[in-house]
Amino acid sequence: MSQQILQHLSSIPPLDTEASALAAQRLDNLTKPPGSLGRLEELFIRLAGITGHPLPSFNKRTVIVMAADHGVCEEGISAFPSEVTRQMVLNFLSGGAAVNVLARQADADVRCVDIGIAGDSMEHPHLIGRNIRQGTANMLKGPAMLREEAEQAIQIGHDVVRDAVAEGYGLFITGEMGIGNTTASSAMMSALTGITPLESVGRGTGLNDERVRHKAVVVQRSIELNHPDATDPIDVLAKVGGLEIAGLVGVILGAAMHRCPVIIDGFISSAAALVAQRLAPQVLDYMIASHVSKEQGHALLLKEIGLDPMLDLHMRLGEGTGGVLALHLIDAASHLASEMATFESAGISGEHTL
Amino acid sequence: MSQQILQHLSSIPPLDTEASALAAQRLDNLTKPPGSLGRLEELFIRLAGITGHPLPSFNKRTVIVMAADHGVCEEGISAFPSEVTRQMVLNFLSGGAAVNVLARQADADVRCVDIGIAGDSMEHPHLIGRNIRQGTANMLKGPAMLREEAEQAIQIGHDVVRDAVAEGYGLFITGEMGIGNTTASSAMMSALTGITPLESVGRGTGLNDERVRHKAVVVQRSIELNHPDATDPIDVLAKVGGLEIAGLVGVILGAAMHRCPVIIDGFISSAAALVAQRLAPQVLDYMIASHVSKEQGHALLLKEIGLDPMLDLHMRLGEGTGGVLALHLIDAASHLASEMATFESAGISGEHTL
Repeated sequence: MSQQILQHLSSIPPLDTEASALAAQRLDNLTKPPGSLGRLEELFIRLAGITGHPLPSFNKRTVIVMAADHGVCEEGISAFPSEVTRQMVLNFLSGGAAVNVLARQADADVRCVDIGIAGDSMEHPHLIGRNIRQGTANMLKGPAMLREEAEQAIQIGHDVVRDAVAEGYGLFITGEMGIGNTTASSAMMSALTGITPLESVGRGTGLNDERVRHKAVVVQRSIELNHPDATDPIDVLAKVGGLEIAGLVGVILGAAMHRCPVIIDGFISSAAALVAQRLAPQVLDYMIASHVSKEQGHALLLKEIGLDPMLDLHMRLGEGTGGVLALHLIDAASHLASEMATFESAGISGEHTL
Repeated sequence: MSQQILQHLSSIPPLDTEASALAAQRLDNLTKPPGSLGRLEELFIRLAGITGHPLPSFNKRTVIVMAADHGVCEEGISAFPSEVTRQMVLNFLSGGAAVNVLARQADADVRCVDIGIAGDSMEHPHLIGRNIRQGTANMLKGPAMLREEAEQAIQIGHDVVRDAVAEGYGLFITGEMGIGNTTASSAMMSALTGITPLESVGRGTGLNDERVRHKAVVVQRSIELNHPDATDPIDVLAKVGGLEIAGLVGVILGAAMHRCPVIIDGFISSAAALVAQRLAPQVLDYMIASHVSKEQGHALLLKEIGLDPMLDLHMRLGEGTGGVLALHLIDAASHLASEMATFESAGISGEHTL
């Protein structure tokens, strides 16, 4: 592995058990039955372990939307044409997309990275321009990209996180835009887990049954043609993945390296999470699954990674939308821990000792 | 039925289908694949039908915490002593309980009603004092309360909503405090549905296996002794229910009568929702289930009512905590509908017509 980030995977720190223990102790003194806040308590204890702070909170947080195109769109695997990737990026930049609306509600920023949009170079003061190539090649005719390109995309994802951490950001949410990227994600999922394309392929942005079957055939043939090595996640990423998915692998690894939690959004983000976890299993401790989407393979993919989502809203939009919704739950855990009265301060009787 | 509210159950209006149709039309023009926001879209369409506004939003909203005590606590069915009801009400009033913290985060108010707390009268400038009796009687020795008292409590719940609507509140969240009230809720659930106490009884605030079995015996014997009539929800409420649960029945019915959505919190709130729905099936259209709690009977109870919760956080605290968390999702639906760009305004290509 040539890239810097991949040489330092073992530097992802373990969770800080002392901070977690202090957080747990604090929760048990609050005016509620022990453990009664359920997953919010588990989340808070883990956030303490991730950050090393017994009372973690996250004032600056951002969605990182990685955007790129997919050569496999030639095969008619999406309900929308490729140019929508570029159009939606402009929508993100002007604040009109779903993820922008939800991010404003949750006091989060949205940073958009052109890591591989097709066509002319995009210029915009708020776009982070890191275009590696103008979309992947059609994986039905050969590898989607070079191994070096996948590694470069991972490095870019890491660097975007590093730069944001330097500005004071402490929590990241994965987001993506790329017409065709559920196809690439299904191919990666099948290549890495052995789960068949019939199970990993879904409707994406809105295919009918016939076109879903066609999409599964495209995924199956792309895998047969390119022979991705299931024991080499970068090989899978390069041969049947996508530039924005590789970028998100870097975002996830970068967050963990900087002791920041990273909220995993939907199906495409989870394909990136699978690669990150196969590269460095300890990264799982830093990931928080937001929601299970309606995309067929998502629940199974989350299970493969070992993630348990908090929301089930039948969403299938991507962009980071489910991830931003989960931010309210993380904030809730922080607020509860810092603002609730204790049994002592409120003068409340403890449990019976019957 | 002697009380005014119960005479007007048939006045609950049907959903406004025209407003819902306009809301659905708006959603389909936004820059996302049709239906891709899943349950947030369904929710928004229903909120339009509830309020009669095609673009509903909820600026003033409040949790209504009904508080009362339970005579059955004499039987050792709770991990906490009865006086904790009163102590926790003081905690609500001083803003230190979990529901206060979550309500502040979600820009909601908390209104607390003494509808049947035991002991001396509570005086506090922010407490809504409507004490009907100083806790229920021990249902293991006779009916928990008189039928007239249950009806009075329903009327009080309705009136609290009516008064809040007059002040501009447009959305309500059910909350409760009452040591012993999971026992009463289980008894109501079993009496109304025929589901056995072994299935309807859970750990409450933290019982061990042995005490859960004892609690199930108490529920079983209370039903055998009082013979609540499964076809008469008020009879069940009076004989094996609670004053705060009856109050919440009134809150739910009152919200529907005033065309306001009502978010149903956990197990106890759901027992109230079951009674409301048995009294007036059309009230179901106005209810939004927030979360499924860890209390054993809750998932089954929601299913009986016909409610599908959005959150599964393994919480078992009550107070309205799960309900307030769901408020973020309702706000998300409103924000998305009013703030997202349309395909036309953003210049984005529509779906392929392959």
